[in-house]
Amino acid sequence: MAGPVETAQSSGAVLKTLDIRAVRFDGGLWARRQEVNREAALPHGLRMLETAGNLDNLRIAAGRKTGRFRGRPFMDSDVYKWLEAAAFEIARAPSDQLRASSETLIELVAAAQGDDGYLNSYYTIAEPGRRWTDLAHGHELYCAGHLIQAALAYRRATGDDRLLAIARRFVDCIHAVFGPGRRATTDGHAEIEMALVELYRETGERRHLDLAAFFLDQRGHGRIGQNRYDSPAAFQDRVPVREATTVEGHAVRALYLTTGAADLYLETGETLLLETLTRQWQDMVESKLYVTGGVGARHLAESFGQSYELPSDLAYGETCGGIASIMWSWRMLLATGHARYADLIERTLYNAVLAGVSLNGEQYFYVNPLASNGEAEHLHRGGCRRKAWHFVACCPPNVMRLLASLGHYVGTGDASGLQIHQYAAAHVVAPDVALRMETAYPWDGRVRLTLEETSAGPWTLALRVPGWCTGASVRVNGRETADSATPSGYLRLERAWARGDVVELDLPMPARCVVAHPWIESTRGCVAIERGPLVYCLEQADHPGTRIADLEIDAAAPLQSAWDPDTLHGVTVIRASGWEVDTSAWRHRLYRPLGSAPPAPRRPVTLHAIPYHAWANRESGAMRVWIPRAEN
Amino acid sequence: MAGPVETAQSSGAVLKTLDIRAVRFDGGLWARRQEVNREAALPHGLRMLETAGNLDNLRIAAGRKTGRFRGRPFMDSDVYKWLEAAAFEIARAPSDQLRASSETLIELVAAAQGDDGYLNSYYTIAEPGRRWTDLAHGHELYCAGHLIQAALAYRRATGDDRLLAIARRFVDCIHAVFGPGRRATTDGHAEIEMALVELYRETGERRHLDLAAFFLDQRGHGRIGQNRYDSPAAFQDRVPVREATTVEGHAVRALYLTTGAADLYLETGETLLLETLTRQWQDMVESKLYVTGGVGARHLAESFGQSYELPSDLAYGETCGGIASIMWSWRMLLATGHARYADLIERTLYNAVLAGVSLNGEQYFYVNPLASNGEAEHLHRGGCRRKAWHFVACCPPNVMRLLASLGHYVGTGDASGLQIHQYAAAHVVAPDVALRMETAYPWDGRVRLTLEETSAGPWTLALRVPGWCTGASVRVNGRETADSATPSGYLRLERAWARGDVVELDLPMPARCVVAHPWIESTRGCVAIERGPLVYCLEQADHPGTRIADLEIDAAAPLQSAWDPDTLHGVTVIRASGWEVDTSAWRHRLYRPLGSAPPAPRRPVTLHAIPYHAWANRESGAMRVWIPRAEN
Repeated sequence: MAGPVETAQSSGAVLKTLDIRAVRFDGGLWARRQEVNREAALPHGLRMLETAGNLDNLRIAAGRKTGRFRGRPFMDSDVYKWLEAAAFEIARAPSDQLRASSETLIELVAAAQGDDGYLNSYYTIAEPGRRWTDLAHGHELYCAGHLIQAALAYRRATGDDRLLAIARRFVDCIHAVFGPGRRATTDGHAEIEMALVELYRETGERRHLDLAAFFLDQRGHGRIGQNRYDSPAAFQDRVPVREATTVEGHAVRALYLTTGAADLYLETGETLLLETLTRQWQDMVESKLYVTGGVGARHLAESFGQSYELPSDLAYGETCGGIASIMWSWRMLLATGHARYADLIERTLYNAVLAGVSLNGEQYFYVNPLASNGEAEHLHRGGCRRKAWHFVACCPPNVMRLLASLGHYVGTGDASGLQIHQYAAAHVVAPDVALRMETAYPWDGRVRLTLEETSAGPWTLALRVPGWCTGASVRVNGRETADSATPSGYLRLERAWARGDVVELDLPMPARCVVAHPWIESTRGCVAIERGPLVYCLEQADHPGTRIADLEIDAAAPLQSAWDPDTLHGVTVIRASGWEVDTSAWRHRLYRPLGSAPPAPRRPVTLHAIPYHAWANRESGAMRVWIPRAEN
Repeated sequence: MAGPVETAQSSGAVLKTLDIRAVRFDGGLWARRQEVNREAALPHGLRMLETAGNLDNLRIAAGRKTGRFRGRPFMDSDVYKWLEAAAFEIARAPSDQLRASSETLIELVAAAQGDDGYLNSYYTIAEPGRRWTDLAHGHELYCAGHLIQAALAYRRATGDDRLLAIARRFVDCIHAVFGPGRRATTDGHAEIEMALVELYRETGERRHLDLAAFFLDQRGHGRIGQNRYDSPAAFQDRVPVREATTVEGHAVRALYLTTGAADLYLETGETLLLETLTRQWQDMVESKLYVTGGVGARHLAESFGQSYELPSDLAYGETCGGIASIMWSWRMLLATGHARYADLIERTLYNAVLAGVSLNGEQYFYVNPLASNGEAEHLHRGGCRRKAWHFVACCPPNVMRLLASLGHYVGTGDASGLQIHQYAAAHVVAPDVALRMETAYPWDGRVRLTLEETSAGPWTLALRVPGWCTGASVRVNGRETADSATPSGYLRLERAWARGDVVELDLPMPARCVVAHPWIESTRGCVAIERGPLVYCLEQADHPGTRIADLEIDAAAPLQSAWDPDTLHGVTVIRASGWEVDTSAWRHRLYRPLGSAPPAPRRPVTLHAIPYHAWANRESGAMRVWIPRAEN
């Protein structure tokens, strides 16, 4: 992920990232999720890399084993993403076990590297002599990008630069093949761009930044897409990067590309790039975004749909798409300092992405529908069961590296002040400042920040007021302040702070019903329930004996929120008034004349909503986010 | 289509088909469509077969030309379907031109046939030596089926059995490869089954019926589907034909298979087959059918969705799927005599299929969405423009052969009586009976039948009362009768008829609003307008300056129907009361809290609905069948 983005010398950034170890979650949802990620998900992932053949592929490439390549051409990238996740975990807290496993993998990767630096087990084993011949589908540069990111994370976490040396040798090999006067093309799947920018940040070597820019410039000439499924649009190859106005095609590729372009902007400050990225981001949030923050409506080609094409049950919403969206928005936040990007990160994180992994950390959704009829995964319709791994296993290790590096998204800061973008029980240690953040967020909107260290002079503490929040208030040392959120979405508290100062932020989070744009077909006549940053859903497990599809909500009645420590590791549940409609009159028919039957009988029921991210952790069953409104 | 099915010796049929020339449309919608089909579509199709390479493929296979195979492996089938359409046209009315063109094609097909009878230009040119090696995707038996059907139609139309001789030589070749003790597998795309049954009907050779049964028995052993896209379900290979309870997988293949199975039932009377087919048909109409009669919800794998998965804008609804549904329902009608099958034929014919071809006969939809935003065809979303031809061109010649043979679906009969299933201005000549049907159907529900010839003894005239109709009445020689529709859906008039007797059937067809099953996501809160057998839609061309997506209907207000001779070659248009909603408050956002904005302003407007089948014949623009209901 180029995890946090190190932006020390950035000319386009208005915010400065904190050190990789600056934020430590301290109890609460994220601490628990990180612990599960470390204790369960990472060991599980390592086993899966063995089972699925990723490690054997490297062993065969290293000449240590015989056999055939297994899986898809990009299998190496799963190993790199696991290594990156492990690195972030090692940075979070030392682990002999993670260190040992990582060193074993790094040694294996080293052995699989060719004498000339080339490194890709698929082409080495399965298509020797054909490297760089199928850039559109081969994923060689994509894998290289993940190698670079893992190497940077591992070096930052451990000081050990063996993996970085491997990556740099491969990058030298790539420089020898691609660039001005050499081959002018790029990978079908963006990723190398953001990795090269981050390598530039680490090494200061300008040629890496230039190569990233070169690869970005290869897009938009219609040379990558070839057939009906692989159109230029699918490959973000329809228009040049600086002329793009929409997000289109394969959602993950599209947003990895915008992430790379945003990284380039952060280093160059090129206004045109930021303008086009802003336009694309607006296009996404104005017409192609699920309420969960999920992106990529279509199963076919894993792509963005047209504007307002956002089916619920047929949603694709690949977990990696949500992660890509977070990576992009993070860079837009650094570039602009505007809270709307942190808002989308929050929405996407708590809903689209967090739903991708089970509470026990060992099961993953690739597809994240917003409604399920409770049937097992059917060809091209999201099911209601996560899987231990996937044939294309991009999502599980992507979730792992995101969760392990989540602290990076909490704040930014420099001598002028500290900006808090995400709220969670945590310690934050910035240059000259340390503070403790106490909160039960996302279950409670009250956040208490206590300064444990501070520099002498005045500085500004900026606190994001989430877009979902109305009536935010803040007290400093017990006194209500007159400060209110600025147009950029932050409360800015400029003070000469003292150790022990206490800031109490109150973000009221009553449960609310939301409605969707009338041009979205799947949400017509429906509401979704939200509370704070969380999107809720109805799940079959809470409605025994009732079909989820037969439930309607009385959207005018009040919603009741209650903390339930015994459900789903502890969640705030929401109860709503509604009805169960007797649809038995519809048996054996799909259509009938209006008014040809009396109104369907209905009985009052209480709807039980749980956070969307926690669904599918109990017995299989139906689920829906968008709930039809009863006609009163 | 094995066009009408000749059922003389059938043991499973309760109705008997009429001769290929028994029904002649006489003015009205179908006569006009047949004329366009003959005068414009067939010549256009012949040009396209030349342009697309179908004929060149045969020339190369015949050794008359050099070059590479063009198009998909099933290109020959388009030629055969064109020949079948031409044959039906020749039967309808002699044509030197069609006869000459047909003979040229037949001579070419003969030249492309191998010495051993094998005939497939793709395998002959592109994969010599690999015939029958990829049954799942190769379409060899599929093409053979279309050859057989064309040959039978041509022989019945002209008495010329040259094409039939070619087909029979190929069938001999197939018998030598497949069957008990030989290869036990079948084609990925059903079609050969119905063709072999029809060949049995024509020749009386039992081995053809047995081979059809053998091919049907190959299904359901999970041997055809191989990967995620090609699952056994996609190939109707998940359960044996006699155990199927649902329609699933590739819609056209699924319904070609049920058509073949129904043909087998018609010959064998095997109860179990009819039971399973009835169950599957019910599954289709109860949970997987568009209101237009269209089938196959999914673009991906062109397949049926799950129950109630019927998106409007993302509908696939392949034109061939509608044709397949008609072929199947026709056989179910012959097997049972129940009007529900004729009802579905009518609905599918006037809406799902007729929308597939432009008024001028030279443009075709492959995908038939029920809503379009008016943009050009986008990757995997139906557009708003028909095309002259398609890379996979199954639909255009399928429409041609259906329209040319449409008379077959009008009636059935034997010595006991005559059954009228479809109403149109036409002459019907059955054994011992001739009648003239005068009507402006589908624009007017009054049908006047005048007996021009009749046998002496009593017989029964059965008239279908469409499922959409309430208040049907009938007068015989001016006197109201007490006869009412039987449970099978027919008014049965048993009389000793005399020449000149007049039966006046009145099927009231006020415009009506229909609603859809509440479990269908795309239709929630909407109504569709229907009148008689026609489904209506709103089209941009009738609503200048207004976004179709912003229109709502007042479903409680009366609908006004009016014949408009100047619109779309003459249609009954329907006007409804409604509103144009000002959605400008939604600019720049997709979701917002309920009640956070005042109700959207709206202004009263008149909605203009046209028959769905006639959309996309004017300037490009948005269209929708399902119209949101205004909240009053």
